[in-house]
Amino acid sequence: MSDQAAPQYPTRQLCDFLARLTLDDVPAPVIERTKDLFLDWMASAIAGKDAPAVRRIQEFAAAMGPQDGDAEVFVDRRRTSPYFAALINGASSHVVEQDDVHNGSVLHPAAVVFPAVVAAAQAEGKTGAEVLLASIAGYEAGIRIGEFMGRSHYRVFHTTGTVGTLAAAAAVAKLFGLDAEGINQALGTAGTQAAGLWEFLRDAADSKQLHTAKAAADGLQSAWLARAGFTGARQILEGAQGMAAGMSSDANPAALTDGLGTRWATAETSFKFFASCRHTHPAADALKALMQRDGLRAGDIAAVTAHVHQGAIDVLGPVVDPRTIHQAKFSMGTVLGLVAWYAHAGLGEFEEHALRDAEVAAFREKVTMELDDEINAAYPRQWIGRVTVRTTDGRTLGARVDVPKGDPDNTLSRPELEAKAIQLAAFRHGATEAEMRTIIARVWQLEQAADVRDWLPFAR
Amino acid sequence: MSDQAAPQYPTRQLCDFLARLTLDDVPAPVIERTKDLFLDWMASAIAGKDAPAVRRIQEFAAAMGPQDGDAEVFVDRRRTSPYFAALINGASSHVVEQDDVHNGSVLHPAAVVFPAVVAAAQAEGKTGAEVLLASIAGYEAGIRIGEFMGRSHYRVFHTTGTVGTLAAAAAVAKLFGLDAEGINQALGTAGTQAAGLWEFLRDAADSKQLHTAKAAADGLQSAWLARAGFTGARQILEGAQGMAAGMSSDANPAALTDGLGTRWATAETSFKFFASCRHTHPAADALKALMQRDGLRAGDIAAVTAHVHQGAIDVLGPVVDPRTIHQAKFSMGTVLGLVAWYAHAGLGEFEEHALRDAEVAAFREKVTMELDDEINAAYPRQWIGRVTVRTTDGRTLGARVDVPKGDPDNTLSRPELEAKAIQLAAFRHGATEAEMRTIIARVWQLEQAADVRDWLPFAR
Repeated sequence: MSDQAAPQYPTRQLCDFLARLTLDDVPAPVIERTKDLFLDWMASAIAGKDAPAVRRIQEFAAAMGPQDGDAEVFVDRRRTSPYFAALINGASSHVVEQDDVHNGSVLHPAAVVFPAVVAAAQAEGKTGAEVLLASIAGYEAGIRIGEFMGRSHYRVFHTTGTVGTLAAAAAVAKLFGLDAEGINQALGTAGTQAAGLWEFLRDAADSKQLHTAKAAADGLQSAWLARAGFTGARQILEGAQGMAAGMSSDANPAALTDGLGTRWATAETSFKFFASCRHTHPAADALKALMQRDGLRAGDIAAVTAHVHQGAIDVLGPVVDPRTIHQAKFSMGTVLGLVAWYAHAGLGEFEEHALRDAEVAAFREKVTMELDDEINAAYPRQWIGRVTVRTTDGRTLGARVDVPKGDPDNTLSRPELEAKAIQLAAFRHGATEAEMRTIIARVWQLEQAADVRDWLPFAR
Repeated sequence: MSDQAAPQYPTRQLCDFLARLTLDDVPAPVIERTKDLFLDWMASAIAGKDAPAVRRIQEFAAAMGPQDGDAEVFVDRRRTSPYFAALINGASSHVVEQDDVHNGSVLHPAAVVFPAVVAAAQAEGKTGAEVLLASIAGYEAGIRIGEFMGRSHYRVFHTTGTVGTLAAAAAVAKLFGLDAEGINQALGTAGTQAAGLWEFLRDAADSKQLHTAKAAADGLQSAWLARAGFTGARQILEGAQGMAAGMSSDANPAALTDGLGTRWATAETSFKFFASCRHTHPAADALKALMQRDGLRAGDIAAVTAHVHQGAIDVLGPVVDPRTIHQAKFSMGTVLGLVAWYAHAGLGEFEEHALRDAEVAAFREKVTMELDDEINAAYPRQWIGRVTVRTTDGRTLGARVDVPKGDPDNTLSRPELEAKAIQLAAFRHGATEAEMRTIIARVWQLEQAADVRDWLPFAR
């Protein structure tokens, strides 16, 4: 069936756009932002070193995969086949909860798109420009598919696992230079493998790392199979027995084609500044701003009220006495305590101080959350942060931040991204500062790399 | 958490049963039937040789997996790691549509359970008795989970893909000797990967082979990870964000524990007599019976109405103009046409006549399906076949078959199973009759095999 004769269902329109897309079509700021996202991802993937869930997946790959290959594994600097490199790098990308997020789709694109693209690109000697273009294709597709699947999907399914499989497939299919029909086949094969349920949260189980691992690896597999002629359902998203029919009750087909070529969803993606649950970030920003503006120190603060949206209360409310570092990332009192005492709540602050400091524990007792109608009405379009502070000398002070740090309108600068990347790499000694400086320099020039095969500074 | 302190949710009760199960608990006829199912599966897996979808998966495994290993691939007689052996043998098991089916769960257990068990058993030098016990555990678990997920699940999801992942996981977890908690973890990891949508049927796409491939391989992976300490959601089936919450509207938790230790679901499994979708078999049996009874020939038939359950309409309804032999197996008109013209719809009839004969194509136009309330109410516990035939000379004739050929009450004898196995193996020259005679003799003695590592007669 020729492209011309193909029926124009929404998935195919998306595939047509992806097939035609060239870097010349992409505004320069979007390309620059993609490099920002790429660096932020690499650092997250390196920071996942030694996490138990990631180690188990490395052991599985060692037992089932080849002992060498063309694709690099960031956490152990070995090489293996692209499938297993995507699997392990996908697992390690998400575990420290510092990777990017797209608000509207509630998708973490970096953790699924980049592991697949880099592994496939290394195996086939692609250029940096091809890596960037493929990654943008993955972001543009994945974000729209996430929006298409809707909020009903996210209530039960971990969108980064389900939709992430298609995002990775779209990206690698573009890397392989497939036409619209080929990309469509890749999406069909990816969609029929799309999985990931939130039930694991109840047991604090390891599934979240498997979701990103499998999304990246199965997405790569789907594109590989599509190139080889293995076929999948064309209307895998909107069809009568497709993803939306099975896993959504509020799917919106118009989202699949929303602003193709004019709206760059890639650039809407947010960076995480604090190493904690995103619902804590607006209040943390507001407290930090207030303390800087009024010259307060942690000891000056008697009480903090965080004015929040309902979702923050739902997720963070139950966490009153955190017992693990991961759980502390869902404790508003801990996050504000770290910000008050250390001016930041990054990986290092959580590791060193979240559970060990008596001051931080005491600060937790000073923090309360309060539902704010205006903030709640603006969510999730806008994540407004507002705090009221009572000082030890009896003053009442307030501060508000309309756009939390890391969102596109208050994004991280390149120096901030570089500092975050170096900190992430240092977290488990995944890479030295010198290595990260090399990586950073290469990422800022990514579109000029002639071949990414041995491009990353992790020697065999 | 000790087993004693564990809350007794249905999934855990199922896991407790599986952990305690020994071959001594299993009635001898059930063990014998399991060997029947094992032979029937091996022959199906061999018959998948050279199918394009299977070849693509072999090529993927060659590109991504190791070049040697402990587990055998039936279609090319190579060895690789258990993950890839399960993947390829899972793909090839289902492609000729001759593998077994459990009516009540609409699950094809063989195609997902045996590939995973055999691959893992070969890698770890397990005995034939351990293979049998693990396989029975996989059947008992998978069938109950399929029944739990209900008819609403099957309307959109290919249960053998979704539930098959858990069936394979339960089987390999049992093979590994995991306790109830370990089996529960394996199911949690399998369930959060469970996927497979029917949408592919509309395009005659290759996804069905990927579903069984992935279910077998990911089930094996889930058990492997659980043994290594990787955790999953305990209430992956019945939990608020588990499989039923996301993918069913009529889940029945009682099904998970139905008759544990007294009802042997394994022995309820049906063999396929025709080489087509099981939903076509009852009507095919009824038409065959009618033509024999009334001495009709194909040319005497002006029209056939197949009175069917809703599931048949859901699955077969979209297939009006089959373009591939595989798709023709889902065409009621084609199957009835083959039965009318050749008195059988086996592998050979599909290969030679399904798409080539003008008579069969013309017969398709004479066949319609009609929902029958009584048949629909009895389904899926009973698959009743009923047809009404209008003859060219104006008569209206009817026939009904309450138990289609291959069901436990109308099962295949061992001579019939042996003949079917030899035919399947000969289909693409996958194994010679002499090789199959060796396999058959070994299967009938499976419980006595001391080590299945080099047990299959496919020399390296």
